[in-house]
Amino acid sequence: MARPSGVVTLLTDFGTRDGYVGAMKGRILRSNRALAIVDLTHDVPPGDVLFGAFALAQAVPFFPKGSVHCAVVDPGVGGQRAAVAVEFAGQWMVGPDNGIFSLAARGPRRVFRIEVERLYEGGQEGGGVCATFHGRDIFAPAAARLASGVEPGALGPEVYELVTLEIREPERIADGYTAEVIHVDRFGNLVTNLPEQSLAGPNTDRWRVTVGSAEVSGVRKTFSDVESGSLVAYVGSAGYLEVGVRNGSAAERLNVDRGEKVALRHPDSQKPG
Amino acid sequence: MARPSGVVTLLTDFGTRDGYVGAMKGRILRSNRALAIVDLTHDVPPGDVLFGAFALAQAVPFFPKGSVHCAVVDPGVGGQRAAVAVEFAGQWMVGPDNGIFSLAARGPRRVFRIEVERLYEGGQEGGGVCATFHGRDIFAPAAARLASGVEPGALGPEVYELVTLEIREPERIADGYTAEVIHVDRFGNLVTNLPEQSLAGPNTDRWRVTVGSAEVSGVRKTFSDVESGSLVAYVGSAGYLEVGVRNGSAAERLNVDRGEKVALRHPDSQKPG
Amino acid sequence: MARPSGVVTLLTDFGTRDGYVGAMKGRILRSNRALAIVDLTHDVPPGDVLFGAFALAQAVPFFPKGSVHCAVVDPGVGGQRAAVAVEFAGQWMVGPDNGIFSLAARGPRRVFRIEVERLYEGGQEGGGVCATFHGRDIFAPAAARLASGVEPGALGPEVYELVTLEIREPERIADGYTAEVIHVDRFGNLVTNLPEQSLAGPNTDRWRVTVGSAEVSGVRKTFSDVESGSLVAYVGSAGYLEVGVRNGSAAERLNVDRGEKVALRHPDSQKPG
Repeated sequence: MARPSGVVTLLTDFGTRDGYVGAMKGRILRSNRALAIVDLTHDVPPGDVLFGAFALAQAVPFFPKGSVHCAVVDPGVGGQRAAVAVEFAGQWMVGPDNGIFSLAARGPRRVFRIEVERLYEGGQEGGGVCATFHGRDIFAPAAARLASGVEPGALGPEVYELVTLEIREPERIADGYTAEVIHVDRFGNLVTNLPEQSLAGPNTDRWRVTVGSAEVSGVRKTFSDVESGSLVAYVGSAGYLEVGVRNGSAAERLNVDRGEKVALRHPDSQKPG
Repeated sequence: MARPSGVVTLLTDFGTRDGYVGAMKGRILRSNRALAIVDLTHDVPPGDVLFGAFALAQAVPFFPKGSVHCAVVDPGVGGQRAAVAVEFAGQWMVGPDNGIFSLAARGPRRVFRIEVERLYEGGQEGGGVCATFHGRDIFAPAAARLASGVEPGALGPEVYELVTLEIREPERIADGYTAEVIHVDRFGNLVTNLPEQSLAGPNTDRWRVTVGSAEVSGVRKTFSDVESGSLVAYVGSAGYLEVGVRNGSAAERLNVDRGEKVALRHPDSQKPG
Repeated sequence: MARPSGVVTLLTDFGTRDGYVGAMKGRILRSNRALAIVDLTHDVPPGDVLFGAFALAQAVPFFPKGSVHCAVVDPGVGGQRAAVAVEFAGQWMVGPDNGIFSLAARGPRRVFRIEVERLYEGGQEGGGVCATFHGRDIFAPAAARLASGVEPGALGPEVYELVTLEIREPERIADGYTAEVIHVDRFGNLVTNLPEQSLAGPNTDRWRVTVGSAEVSGVRKTFSDVESGSLVAYVGSAGYLEVGVRNGSAAERLNVDRGEKVALRHPDSQKPG
């Protein structure tokens, strides 16, 4: 395990109006005043685990090794789902085992189940566990411990499964792909599930991208490659094909949302085999 | 007084679009670069002191001793209301004396009135005080001083009164209680003013909770004790009875808001005397 | 150049739902774990450079010398506009050269053009530059370097021009001024472009301020100088004339927005010459 960086990030669907996030921050600092708390986002739509998984995966890879990411989008709080700590690529993630780590921890990883009794033994956490707020009473203190150098084995046993969301993969068709919008960002850009590698090759300007009622010609580098107000297809910062509108919102323009199909066709494309 | 933890939290109704919160943060760091600034919330509805008081009370108890909480929901800015520093349970709170500390500082406390002249004497703060932005020009620098170990007596005289909001208490009736919704959270959960102690005893599944046109049977532990989409009554993370909808919003479902009456009845309940 | 304070602030139009801001924070901490990251705002309306410039100018002057402000409202990302680092009054600002620094850096300043190749030479940043996310791949690492004491000359050559927004100045008329609303804040207060100096002199209670269909009499000190619900003109925390409603929103009441004309008349005012 990497040496702790002392950074604890928070990603939740708690919003920012109530005192919930503040209580988590207090809990972390009471455990270890020297930790640096970093807000990723608290505006994941309530209970939207896929949205949270996507946002987490966009941010985590850029943090220093030894950082701990506390991700709490937890519609099943207090129920049967486990609490877990996941080690991936030298960083730690802590949260409910409901798929929230599906995208940020793709690949070899270690998973530990957090046992509440172990967290509270010794009495240093004080108080009890509220059945509707594990963010404050389980995940925040567990994240603080890991960020302070406590070994994950002290929180619970290693396990070998992690709940993962079924993320649909794009489908190869005769002259291209059928993909899908998996995220709509704040600007109304449509992020698809088609990785940039699928678009590699010559003549990227000959791809035709169909989404909703619109067809976009060519995959460009950036927004300013088209006129203001025009649709543009490009490889976004998450490494996937996106469709946007320069100085506007593609989601509004096309009236589409997550789950919308996207077709890609190329005259030179050929389904292998 | 507890040794300063070096943590300064911010709770305001300034929102996050403008530069107001940034100016406060700058002011604090200019006073002492080593302080850790923690956002509680800036999304208290404009001028809603009760909302701010509730959010503050949800977060403060979880912070380390010696922390300073700067809470600015201040519709009377520049007018007659005093500026105060309140010591409670080993932590400090700084803000307008308008009731914002009513819920977070219930119990033995010390109160100091902040005198602007003392804050600005010696010239280390520079500039003057804007009559519409005491958050930046009075509360932030005062919080920074306390967090740096300055004695509160250096900011102004000890006083013995603190403005408190009149929070209605639940009423005991023949077979239970009449309570009231005092907060609606981001998820649409209805937080009442009925403390969990009132619900203690056997057969908590026999409580009937009436709110708006709905009746909920039993007080459960958590959301997942009911079907998705069902109403559920439970003891929330603030220690009060709440009514929610699993994977939904009780406020929307029942079309109720803060101030709504809530009736609790129990067949075994008996008004003492 | 001032010694670095170790503070890096972030101001963007990225919103807070997605992982964009988190990725920038990770990038900064990976560059230097000891830096303190401070959110100014991420809620600048998408692509609204003037709004961002105004919010930046409200916060920057209050930070300690040697701080670095990373401001990314960047509708031209990936296009022809330059990336710049600006030194002003002992602090640094980093972002696109599109006018975002127009208000925060008025006066003697030094400007350096950031050259991406120099940022990435030596390999310490790793990865490449995404054409749609310079916030993460150029501005965040450049800000982290400056905040760590790297000389700006190491990022690129000094240049002598900076794109500035054309901010309209108020016009002197026979008995006063014609001004303009340049910002509407979260409370619905209307911030004009008329600096307080223009209002100096005796009898400030005799100014008549006309905006939309309303006329306001007198320039007051603060909201509580008028009745709840009344319009009030005052000098705001940015040093400009503002029009607000006590416990309400002037923007809603008057149904006006940025760009609205504001007339000021004074019986004793006389156009010089």
